[in-house]
Amino acid sequence: MFKKRDNIKEVEEGKYLAPKFDENGLIPVVATDFQTGGILMHGYMNEESLKKTIETKEAHYWSRSRKKIWRKGEISGFVQKVREIRIDDDQDSIWLFVDIGKGASCHVGYRSCFYRSIPLGNIINTEKLEMDFKEKEKIFDPKEVYKNEPNPTKL
Amino acid sequence: MFKKRDNIKEVEEGKYLAPKFDENGLIPVVATDFQTGGILMHGYMNEESLKKTIETKEAHYWSRSRKKIWRKGEISGFVQKVREIRIDDDQDSIWLFVDIGKGASCHVGYRSCFYRSIPLGNIINTEKLEMDFKEKEKIFDPKEVYKNEPNPTKL
Repeated sequence: MFKKRDNIKEVEEGKYLAPKFDENGLIPVVATDFQTGGILMHGYMNEESLKKTIETKEAHYWSRSRKKIWRKGEISGFVQKVREIRIDDDQDSIWLFVDIGKGASCHVGYRSCFYRSIPLGNIINTEKLEMDFKEKEKIFDPKEVYKNEPNPTKL
Repeated sequence: MFKKRDNIKEVEEGKYLAPKFDENGLIPVVATDFQTGGILMHGYMNEESLKKTIETKEAHYWSRSRKKIWRKGEISGFVQKVREIRIDDDQDSIWLFVDIGKGASCHVGYRSCFYRSIPLGNIINTEKLEMDFKEKEKIFDPKEVYKNEPNPTKL
């Protein structure tokens, strides 16, 4: 669908979008909060969801758990309005700048999926690395919002 | 090496680090600039590189092109000092806050790998989507820094 990846110089220094999708047809995507700058979530897109995101200016991902295109917010109402999209040097990962207003991006209920911080320094026991919760309050109650939807988290 | 992923509730709401590595033993990692907040790069870690990053407070990745642990800056000198590490809800992606001083993170020579912006709105021709360069100046000359090292970008 997008430009063919003909040569490395063009991929890195050229002006044409020529994204690389992996063996599953996916490209990793990071969404940052347009207001705070922090990372909200890490997900994946296929060709079609990238095209839809560019055209509609609303974030569309590929749901690996449901195996379908996922318009972020279609169940929760927490839509991500896309203000800018960037791609990296070798065009194999994408950065979305999104506006979520006072909403949330995490299915557990927090604003950002990255609510826990890993302790730094010497590790005494790798099996008991205690993290620190950086977000203290949930924005919404997942049970109320998702009702009987299956949890996307896999072990 | 890290805690076993026993149940979803603990993975999402628990305090113990229990990262999920994919079928290749890797977890995606995003590094943001401690000074500006912007994304510098997207990479991958294996178990060992995550442990080394926590312990040394310097970013270690897994180089997919060289198939080895890669201490960021080992060739270029552009080390990433890690100020904080976060993990997401289902513990399958990592966010590093890094300090790179006046350095760079992109092998093409820019400060951030994400120097190009994709145009938003209706697409006339997906094969000719012209991007906008957001970083105008390179920080370093890759030919001088990397000399005869192979380019990690793959088509």
